[in-house]
Amino acid sequence: MAEVSYTTFPVESLRAFCARVFERLGLPQEDARQAADVLAFADLRGIDSHGVARLRTYYDMLTLGRINPIARLTTLRESASTATIDGGNGLGLVVGPRAHRVAMQKAGEAGSGWVSVCNTNHYGAAGYYAIEALRRDQIGWSMTNSTKLVAPLWGAERMLGTNPIAIAFPGKEEPPIVIDMATCAAAYGKVEIAIRKGETVPQGWIADRDGRPSTNPHDMVDGGAILPLGSERERGGHKGYCLAVMVDVLCCVLSGANWGPFAPPFALRQETPARSVGKGIGHFFGAMRIDAFIDPDEFKRQIDDYIRTFRATRPAPGTSGPIIPGDPEREQEAIRARDGVPVVAPVVADLREIARATGVSLD
Amino acid sequence: MAEVSYTTFPVESLRAFCARVFERLGLPQEDARQAADVLAFADLRGIDSHGVARLRTYYDMLTLGRINPIARLTTLRESASTATIDGGNGLGLVVGPRAHRVAMQKAGEAGSGWVSVCNTNHYGAAGYYAIEALRRDQIGWSMTNSTKLVAPLWGAERMLGTNPIAIAFPGKEEPPIVIDMATCAAAYGKVEIAIRKGETVPQGWIADRDGRPSTNPHDMVDGGAILPLGSERERGGHKGYCLAVMVDVLCCVLSGANWGPFAPPFALRQETPARSVGKGIGHFFGAMRIDAFIDPDEFKRQIDDYIRTFRATRPAPGTSGPIIPGDPEREQEAIRARDGVPVVAPVVADLREIARATGVSLD
Repeated sequence: MAEVSYTTFPVESLRAFCARVFERLGLPQEDARQAADVLAFADLRGIDSHGVARLRTYYDMLTLGRINPIARLTTLRESASTATIDGGNGLGLVVGPRAHRVAMQKAGEAGSGWVSVCNTNHYGAAGYYAIEALRRDQIGWSMTNSTKLVAPLWGAERMLGTNPIAIAFPGKEEPPIVIDMATCAAAYGKVEIAIRKGETVPQGWIADRDGRPSTNPHDMVDGGAILPLGSERERGGHKGYCLAVMVDVLCCVLSGANWGPFAPPFALRQETPARSVGKGIGHFFGAMRIDAFIDPDEFKRQIDDYIRTFRATRPAPGTSGPIIPGDPEREQEAIRARDGVPVVAPVVADLREIARATGVSLD
Repeated sequence: MAEVSYTTFPVESLRAFCARVFERLGLPQEDARQAADVLAFADLRGIDSHGVARLRTYYDMLTLGRINPIARLTTLRESASTATIDGGNGLGLVVGPRAHRVAMQKAGEAGSGWVSVCNTNHYGAAGYYAIEALRRDQIGWSMTNSTKLVAPLWGAERMLGTNPIAIAFPGKEEPPIVIDMATCAAAYGKVEIAIRKGETVPQGWIADRDGRPSTNPHDMVDGGAILPLGSERERGGHKGYCLAVMVDVLCCVLSGANWGPFAPPFALRQETPARSVGKGIGHFFGAMRIDAFIDPDEFKRQIDDYIRTFRATRPAPGTSGPIIPGDPEREQEAIRARDGVPVVAPVVADLREIARATGVSLD
């Protein structure tokens, strides 16, 4: 097993660095700060795959003109509670928050707001948006499609992205319930870690290029696929496949973005899709004003009760009992806000290179 | 293995029988027809657990005055695109369709409509509502909580219902994509079938009363639980748990119904919850007008393309390739519309007993 070394940075250093890099790449100051905020959110909460680890890809895409640094959003259609927005091929970290604000504004006026977005790019951690809505006493939903990595049940090809769903519910004295989950059996990052460590992966995570179940992580990278949540038919793999399709249709077919296997590549080294069926990738945001349904104070007291009830569940053997969705990220946030964010050596090398190329210092 | 014998009935006979039974039990004629229509939908599409097999329970509950035959719905709160409805402890098969119509009406006016319902009872197959919305060129969502059967990840107790999610998307020349899935690893009905056949169940479906994974279906019935979709931590069991919580909060906390382990029992023999935290069980309905986002014709053409693209996926070994969500139910519908609905002997016995007790003939 190869050793992995880390350098620890205060989250504010990473945030400031990213913001200045984005500005250097032509983003307006406010947009640059917004984009850096989405990345810092992920780094702080331990969602390492969606924070500064991705700066290199955003940097490459912006430098090569594949993403527009000036995000001009166009409303294609709207109603009192809905809108379809063209993100103008802007950075997803800017398009996402702006489109999401439209959903929250509509919720303010009409009780709920639902926005489907095309012509956009990767928008960071899905949970960022769900948590933003809590500040307004709204329930926020967020979904996005992404470059193909996942096979549909009974398929031998990558046809779907990891297509996450996020939603959050506020407590009163308890912290919020924060759900943020990909609709596949395992994260790609975990397959990469297994390769780095020279280990196998559990049954049910991946299939090889011919669609045969495998535990060799190289089989997935070498033209194989991640399996949907549930893995095989017997365990409900059709349900994970259904959820990925649901996210795909809401984000892409509803907005006019590229769905399924036609989602454009996030990184330069990825293959170009066979054809284009729309513009960019797609997001879907929802916002519901809690007081449009129930007294928010009553809602939050019930969520407190909910959390305490589930924490008091009798534990399964060998466990300390059920946790509440969002617990692991909150624990990381407490640690990292105090001790800083550990960044793995290859990502540090990327950041140093970007620092050199842009003249922005990283400290 | 015990032999199972069936009697086949034309779906119209079952529908007419149920409608007349419901009328005899005090439901207004229109409501009785509506309730029978929801059950017939499930029987026709092969969702046997949600059709006439449940008539006996509805009959018992109505006869004992545990469900109100006259469903009086009250709007507790509303906005342009949302409402909270108290179902007056009416039959879910009547409350559900009425509350869902409110969601669709609001969508007609505000682009989308979202209705959370408390003080209701089991509403039949979740997919019924999603498919109803297609007639209006709307995307329909439907969720409900139900009596506890499922353990949260790392829990040794039943704390959640099977909490299904349904949503449907219309095609133009192709049939619609219809998603209708419980958020647990396997249906309770499949555990019952294994008991009847004297077989074990696959790893990942159930745990025993101490929270230990088991393949003995008796362990689940004897105080154990069904596992969430994903089964264990390694395979994403936390994700199935998250989805069940999401459904629970939207249906119950948002409406003021009984969430989690406090959902009232559907059948008489089930245990009474430790306490009450609201009224009845809860549903959550959503409706989005497709033309509030995109030209419906364009949407449907893309769905056709989506369906054809996924059908053309290279098949995994030993399979004929991915199917489209809704395919199995459509196949059953074609067969059963022609040949009738096969009803297992114990359910036929229940129906005959109800026929005797009510004087409604079954033919």
